[in-house]
Order: sequence, then C-alpha cells, then structure tokens
Amino acid sequence: MGSRHNGGASDRAALGNGGAPPVVDKEVDFANYFCTYAFLYHQKDMLSDRVRMNAYYNSIFRNKHHFHGKTVLDVGTGSGILAIWSAQAGAKKVYAVEATKMSEHARALVKTNNVEDVVEVIEGSMEDVVLPEKVDVIISEWMGYLLLRESMFDSVICARDRWLKPNGVMYPSHARIWFAPIRSGLVDRKENDLEDVIDDWHHFVEDTKDAYGVDMGVLTQPFTAEQRRYYLQTSLWQNLHPNQIIGTAAIIKEIDCLTASVNDISEVRASFSSPITLENTILCGFGGWFDVHFRGRKDNPAQQEVELTTAPSKDAGTHWGQQVFLTHPPSCVTEGDSVSVEFLMYRSKENHRLMEVELSCGVRQSSGNLLPPFKSKFHIE
Amino acid sequence: MGSRHNGGASDRAALGNGGAPPVVDKEVDFANYFCTYAFLYHQKDMLSDRVRMNAYYNSIFRNKHHFHGKTVLDVGTGSGILAIWSAQAGAKKVYAVEATKMSEHARALVKTNNVEDVVEVIEGSMEDVVLPEKVDVIISEWMGYLLLRESMFDSVICARDRWLKPNGVMYPSHARIWFAPIRSGLVDRKENDLEDVIDDWHHFVEDTKDAYGVDMGVLTQPFTAEQRRYYLQTSLWQNLHPNQIIGTAAIIKEIDCLTASVNDISEVRASFSSPITLENTILCGFGGWFDVHFRGRKDNPAQQEVELTTAPSKDAGTHWGQQVFLTHPPSCVTEGDSVSVEFLMYRSKENHRLMEVELSCGVRQSSGNLLPPFKSKFHIE
Repeated sequence: MGSRHNGGASDRAALGNGGAPPVVDKEVDFANYFCTYAFLYHQKDMLSDRVRMNAYYNSIFRNKHHFHGKTVLDVGTGSGILAIWSAQAGAKKVYAVEATKMSEHARALVKTNNVEDVVEVIEGSMEDVVLPEKVDVIISEWMGYLLLRESMFDSVICARDRWLKPNGVMYPSHARIWFAPIRSGLVDRKENDLEDVIDDWHHFVEDTKDAYGVDMGVLTQPFTAEQRRYYLQTSLWQNLHPNQIIGTAAIIKEIDCLTASVNDISEVRASFSSPITLENTILCGFGGWFDVHFRGRKDNPAQQEVELTTAPSKDAGTHWGQQVFLTHPPSCVTEGDSVSVEFLMYRSKENHRLMEVELSCGVRQSSGNLLPPFKSKFHIE
Repeated sequence: MGSRHNGGASDRAALGNGGAPPVVDKEVDFANYFCTYAFLYHQKDMLSDRVRMNAYYNSIFRNKHHFHGKTVLDVGTGSGILAIWSAQAGAKKVYAVEATKMSEHARALVKTNNVEDVVEVIEGSMEDVVLPEKVDVIISEWMGYLLLRESMFDSVICARDRWLKPNGVMYPSHARIWFAPIRSGLVDRKENDLEDVIDDWHHFVEDTKDAYGVDMGVLTQPFTAEQRRYYLQTSLWQNLHPNQIIGTAAIIKEIDCLTASVNDISEVRASFSSPITLENTILCGFGGWFDVHFRGRKDNPAQQEVELTTAPSKDAGTHWGQQVFLTHPPSCVTEGDSVSVEFLMYRSKENHRLMEVELSCGVRQSSGNLLPPFKSKFHIE
C-alpha cells in the first residue's frame, strides 16, 4: 500500500455512516480533533496572531472590574495564556481546563509566571470536569473557521450552563458571522486544476486498459465527483484583500454567548440580498468570516468594549483568515446589480466538528435581467 | 482556535498513553488509517505505480498454474485489481476483502470487467470475515514504507492462519528490508530549517513578554524537542538516486510470508557493518527500502519468479520511495572506511501502524581511527 499519513476530516466519510445521527466516539474525536492542539507550534501560531492576542488582552485589562477578585473559568486554555492574563488582572481564582497534554505546558507557564496560587490547570474534557464552585466569568477562545467549525462552543455552553453564576459574564459576549460576494482568481485556477486531474485520469484509464487489461472507466464518474468535491466544493482558507469584496457584506448569524443553545448554533440559515458595489467586476464566489465582541452583560457591562474581527484587512490578517466558497462559472456583474443568496450550514454527519454548506445564489442585473442561478454544496474541512 | 484539520500520525501522541501496551480502538484505527484508502485519488496513485503493477501483473500471468481453477483470497483488495487479475488468470473463485467503502468501487470494477461470477467482494475487516472455504492462494499488496509501516501484514497473517490450505501459496512469498549509508543535501537543509524555527521562537518569546507580559521561556525546551523531532527525528520519504548510496547495502530483515508470525515482524533488530564504497564523500544518514518476491512455495514453485524492488533507481521509482534517516552532523568518509550500524525498529505505542526506530552508528576509518558515534531515535510517520 504505502500512504503518507493523512488522517483527516473528509476521511471520516469512509466510515460512511450515511444518514445516521452524529455519534461522537471520544477516542476518535481526540484522534481527529483535540490532538491538533497538543503541539506547541500550533499554540505558537495562535499566540502569534496579534489581532487575536490584542483583542483578548485588551478585553481583560481594560475591563479589570470583571476580573478583580473574581473566579474565572477558561475553557480550552491551551498554553494557559487567557488564564494567566485573568490572574494578572486580579482574579481570585482561575480554573483553566484543557483536554490535551498541553495542560502540562500550561502548568509550567502558570508557575514561571508566578500565578500558580491563582490558576489551577485541570486536564480533562469540559463536559467531565467538576469544579468546587460556580464562577463569575467564563473566558474562552473557542472560535473556528467561519466561527462555528470545530463546534467547540458546545463545550463553552456546557461550561456556562453548569458553572456560570446567574449574574456571570461571558468573554466574549457576542459573535457574528459575515458573508459577502467576492472576486478572486481562484475559480479559474481551481477549474483548470480539476480539468488537468480529470484529463490525467482519462489517460490513466486508457493506460490501465492497454497495459493491464482492466477497464477502469466505470470509476470515472465517482473519481470526478471526488475531485470536484476537493477542488470546487471545499471551502478555501484565504486572507482576502478588502478590495476583493465586491458587494455589501451581510450578517448571517448573531450569537449571544450568554443565552445561545447548541440548537441555536448547530444550524445557520440565512437568506439575503447583497448589492454589488463595484463597476464591471466578476462574481467568483463568497467570503465568510466572523467577529466577536467583549461587552460584558447588560447589568454588568464592559467599561471598554472590545471587538475581535477576522474581516478581510490590508494589514491585520488573522490565522483564521476567511473561508471562500467559489461559484462557477464566474459571472460578470456591476454596480446596481444585486446578488440574492440562500445559505444553509449544518454539521457534517461523519464529524460533528466539520460543516456542510448549501449555497445558492442568483444575480439580478439593474436591467431586471436574471443571470443563470448557481447552486452547490460545500464542505468546510 | 482555528486549525486546518491535520489529524495524523504523530497527533496520536497527544493521547499520550505512555507506557501502556498498544490498544487498538477499531474506530480510531479507521479514522487514522483505513480512511486513507477510501479515496480514489489514492488508489490511482497505487494503480499508476508501474513497478508495483508490473510485478503483481507478471507474478500472476507468468504463474497461471497457481491461479487456474484455484480459489484465491485478496486481502485488502482496494480497487479490486489483484482480484480481477486472479480471475482473468483462470481462478475458479476469488474472495476480495476490503475494509473501506472502496469495496463498492471494487464491485463496480468487477462487474464491468465481467468477472462477477468469479470475484466476490466482501466489505469488512479481514479479522472478522468468515469465508465458506479455505483457499489455494492468498494474494495481497500489504507493504508500507520500509515494508512494515501500517502493520497490514498482521491481517495477511491472520488470513493465512485461518483460510490458507496447508499446501497454499502466498503472493508475495518473501520480503526483505534493506538499509544503506547515503549522502544527501537534506541534512544541512533540515538543520537550517530547525535553526530558523528556533530563532523565530526566541523572537516570539521576547515579543510575548514585551507586548503581553507573559514569559514563555519555560516552553523553549519542549518546543525545541518538538521541532527537533519533526525536522531531524522523523524519517523522510525520498526517491533516492542510486549514486546517493555511498556504502554496501545490508539486508536487515527477511520474511517468509508462509511462516512469519506477528511476533517475527513486530520488531526488527539488526547489527551490521557497511564498507564505504565512494571516495571522499559525506555520510549524511541512511536509506531504507524493501523488496518482495513471488516464488510460490518449495513444493509448488513459481514457473517464473518475479521481484518487486523499491530500491533507489534512476528511472523506476515507486510510490513507496525510500525512507531516509538523517545523521547529524554529517561526517566525511571515504572508500576503505566502514560504518557499523545498530538498528532497532518497533511499533509506536500510540499507533501500532507507525514505527519507531533506534539507530546508532559509528565510522571506523581505514586508519583505524574512530569518528564520534551517532545515536538517535526516529519516527516513521
């Protein structure tokens, strides 16, 4: 056989548990997900994300009143950075829960940063951990691509419902998902790549018939489908330039972290229309991103609200980038045209931490003329 | 958080089940391993490997007497190619066992190639499958990197002990692992890459202290260890040029597929000395590869023996390539010098399909002078 190891998201499809409800095998979940966070190079990636770091740092130190003398729970503490900051901001006690062995590094950091009297690192999954008390603040950096990939907010909800005091505060307090039409050179490239792969397949089928007397033709259709999914139906990580946004961005989901239920976030359904704001450009697809806000709560607001946005930016990209969904073929649009979009995102049946997106859109030109509609399914992996 | 999905071999280390004996959770094994083989692009890779294809094709069609009118079991049939060839060579019945959904494609191939009366595709793991009869031949392409990675031969042994007739034949019948000293530009590159990553880490530690008041210095040692493992202690996939081999290659393992037990293959221990055969060159490490032979059995030999070798070759590379183990620093050697090697390979505790290698070597110059010895642990992932 001989395969480079590529365990991974879409691979789980091999289990093919078709229409069955998502079953979460903890061991498999660990092999597929948590493991990623057990590597320091990955922690370093996140700790080097200035936008991310500044937002959390400012949200804590500009709102010390939320932390001073308070009890804090950090869900998925990783290296422990948010727990340490919370302690430095005056927290009385910080419970830092981490599912992976990263907990050992967090413990070391807590010690060398002299907050070991305040921060207690607990290795375990949030769903299983038992705390000796309820907390005033739950802080967590739980956001995945397009906000909800990784489904980690489930653990934050679980923590909130079990351990947050009735008047407790969530950090962050609010989250939003954005979606906007974009232009991009990627469509042509991906379509060409796909074409090359399929051409190559046809030669392979011929060669195999000639050299080895076996006709592989019957696999052309499933191979094409598999490659189509890979090249055109899997969303792409991109750091878009703001000038690639060609229409008005729409908010397709708003989450109040204090009240949202797993039900509220396990499906995102949006229907909106976006005016094209650029002259004579090409609609190549859509970009999706998120922002979160640190506002405290109505009866205990932040002294200074902080925003963390992963929107396209000339100079302040994040490790989240944006998720790009390519529409094909691209269509010529111009100012005055309008793109109507139907968006549906839900969790993959094979892996609840991955997402599937059903996207359809149509362009109404200023003339009233309608361009042929686009409809496709995408996978966020 | 925000992570590209990178489930993968080394990730399993996150489970950190330390000294515990390998426990195989079937679901995890599927997520980590079998899944890979459920993709047609990967099957195509293997089906496009001419060395691999020609060897199996010739082994079957130049030894039809082993197949004509016989019952055959194909372990891990994948696309079904070996099963179809066996039928075309005159087999009376072929059981083609496949653990993944690839079985459905195999079924389609079997049908369109008009051997559905002979080939029965069975989806399931070899350990669980029950056949209605014993077979005359077991054929399987079970070889992983350095032969034993993937530990798939275990399933062939299980199939053999349960389903092969006393006088049955194994395809392939024999296997060997080779090891040889090499020169390569990779050592310098990898050492420089590691240096850059560590430099970058030091800046990161400074920045984090200055900008965010947290001292990460205590993680420098574990980060260095993690990156050292990645850059210098993980074997590399390479298609070596024969002129990179600078000493006599040694056989470090021989397997008789008819008699080998799981015990025989779960550890490879070798101690050998390899004369340097090039003048004024640099010992940069070692290359490992394998070959398998199709000889039938003593009392029922092949009419024409066939060999499948993955040795370094100018023009006949395979998708297996070779596994390269870098020794550092490189040492100058020349004809007349001799490298003594102690090699030990065993299965990873975290994932029984991956391998760990303990390698030590020393160079005795023709003058009798000994160069400083090298000793390191490697991971095959």
